[in-house]
Amino acid sequence: MSALTGPVEIIGTGLLGTSVGLACRRAGLEVLLTDAAPGHVRTARGLGAGRKRRKDDRPQLVVVAVPPDQLGAVIAEALTATEAYGAVVTDVGSVKSAPLAEVAERGVDARRYVGGHPMAGSERSGPLAATAALFDGRPWAITPHAEADAEAVELVEELARLCGAVPVRLDPESHDRAVARTSHVPHLMSALVAGRLAAAPVDHLTLSGQGVRDVTRIAAGDPSLYGQIVSGNAAAVAELLGEVRAQLDLMIAAVANGDRGGLEALLQRGVEGTRAIPGKHGGPQTPSASVFVSVPDTPGELARLFVDAGKSGVNIEDVRIDHDPGRPVGVVELVVADDTAEVLLTSLESNGWVTHR
Amino acid sequence: MSALTGPVEIIGTGLLGTSVGLACRRAGLEVLLTDAAPGHVRTARGLGAGRKRRKDDRPQLVVVAVPPDQLGAVIAEALTATEAYGAVVTDVGSVKSAPLAEVAERGVDARRYVGGHPMAGSERSGPLAATAALFDGRPWAITPHAEADAEAVELVEELARLCGAVPVRLDPESHDRAVARTSHVPHLMSALVAGRLAAAPVDHLTLSGQGVRDVTRIAAGDPSLYGQIVSGNAAAVAELLGEVRAQLDLMIAAVANGDRGGLEALLQRGVEGTRAIPGKHGGPQTPSASVFVSVPDTPGELARLFVDAGKSGVNIEDVRIDHDPGRPVGVVELVVADDTAEVLLTSLESNGWVTHR
Repeated sequence: MSALTGPVEIIGTGLLGTSVGLACRRAGLEVLLTDAAPGHVRTARGLGAGRKRRKDDRPQLVVVAVPPDQLGAVIAEALTATEAYGAVVTDVGSVKSAPLAEVAERGVDARRYVGGHPMAGSERSGPLAATAALFDGRPWAITPHAEADAEAVELVEELARLCGAVPVRLDPESHDRAVARTSHVPHLMSALVAGRLAAAPVDHLTLSGQGVRDVTRIAAGDPSLYGQIVSGNAAAVAELLGEVRAQLDLMIAAVANGDRGGLEALLQRGVEGTRAIPGKHGGPQTPSASVFVSVPDTPGELARLFVDAGKSGVNIEDVRIDHDPGRPVGVVELVVADDTAEVLLTSLESNGWVTHR
Repeated sequence: MSALTGPVEIIGTGLLGTSVGLACRRAGLEVLLTDAAPGHVRTARGLGAGRKRRKDDRPQLVVVAVPPDQLGAVIAEALTATEAYGAVVTDVGSVKSAPLAEVAERGVDARRYVGGHPMAGSERSGPLAATAALFDGRPWAITPHAEADAEAVELVEELARLCGAVPVRLDPESHDRAVARTSHVPHLMSALVAGRLAAAPVDHLTLSGQGVRDVTRIAAGDPSLYGQIVSGNAAAVAELLGEVRAQLDLMIAAVANGDRGGLEALLQRGVEGTRAIPGKHGGPQTPSASVFVSVPDTPGELARLFVDAGKSGVNIEDVRIDHDPGRPVGVVELVVADDTAEVLLTSLESNGWVTHR
């Protein structure tokens, strides 16, 4: 099992690279750090993520953690540089097919390369935000191409597990189509909805509720980073955006023509989509219910609420705090399994909370 | 000031109507209940929301809380039925221009009618979910048309305040364009993104993260209700959907042609939109930061986290619990003011929590 004995080289000591380094150090492996910016290496080293790579080091595994635009070139260089001793090379990039194609174009043998993509951390950046806990419980896509060595695949999966993540194996094309659907297109559509808010009269936005805040939250992400990610997955994204446009045309026609049935069919399709997202712990979604609690907007009250919620014995699956305009009271939404909502509500009310479902 | 002395008649004892009734009763007003379904009136009465309306009752204010499709007809009937004693009529519907036009088409004098729209509760339904606290701290749009009596406007604003809400005055057309932008179009785009998930291979959805869950959450809403709402605001929604389609066409062209600058400009516009949404308490948005905490997925741990967070004295502005596949640990994101994140992080770590930013 424990084929991963190190050293592990990290190329690119930003948030993801430094976090992988910290997780490997936590497991007792030797970690070698490389970055085009010497300051980043110093920071990562200071955090305990490893030491500076030396010329004569011979890493067992190289983890490429550079921005999306540079992935193909750096993976190819790493494969060439480690050819003499056969190191395995992986990466943590958000797109998988384009870098692989670039490696092939450069005429580099890619059998020792197996792509990876931990589903964590893309909204933050820099080594200072790094932590060995970043990948705890997150999916980590492992994307072997057709010619990848079986042992290399095993080694990269072991890295994911060592980082606390859950490996999910997909071929590179499936990965890219999957993230186009679950990440890139949702991001782009979120940006379009948010873009319409930028054009709004200011007083119209006073009617903003939790819904539009949820829909547009990810649109706050760095345009340069998401520009690179989307461009690196252009084919899959463009295909899916075309599907969205076709559905949008149907929707516009339904609204403009008063075609209630057509409109409801599109909305119903959306309901089915929300049900298709896997539930907590990757299992099927269980029916959930919300309990709403009025909470004074001061630090101690939220703690008191969770202590009282804890007394009920009910597991809180999710929490939302509703932002309220102009009043010192907030509404906290506690999401719980459907069959436990009544227990929680009764328990909270017996402790004096104003609640509703 | 206290011109609102009752009785208040509620027509339609669903979630919103019954909640208004409960809030009026809490303030000591007499409340008269009417519903096409006698069972609903019995339920609302049982909850303490008022008594059944009698033929000879003379309400001071009539609140129409029926489904969007029926608003115009019921508002017109209420105006006619109360003409002899000049009751003020309002409603709590999600769209404002179409019902007003319907009242005018029926040749009914609408000076005693002033529209209203509390921004609460649209995702739930039925009198059993009702509560006097439903409107606490929420915006309540007050939408007088050009011929509305000034005293009627005052009375409806007083109802909103009595329910604990914050009145926001807009003309009916501005209201409809505002909610098209902040509610209806975000809902429709959320449904389109979710609809693409319904078409996905199951294993692709294992890569779903918090982002796509946020974007698609509101798409789970009742297609029939949202079909009525969107149809009742067809002109404003269709215009805005046309704008979204134009932006989507630009986006597809940018992605397909590798036009990185064009793509980043659209993403940048989205960033600006997220900043345009008013912050908590209606004030300007303050820079916020997230502190991530690894939390065992059991009831007591979440309570312990909030007790420890409370000790730090830092005000938690928002909370998200990340759903994790296959591991008994969750990641809780605590959103706080930017300049307090370090205090919270240090405080939590001193209590043994594994945190990161």
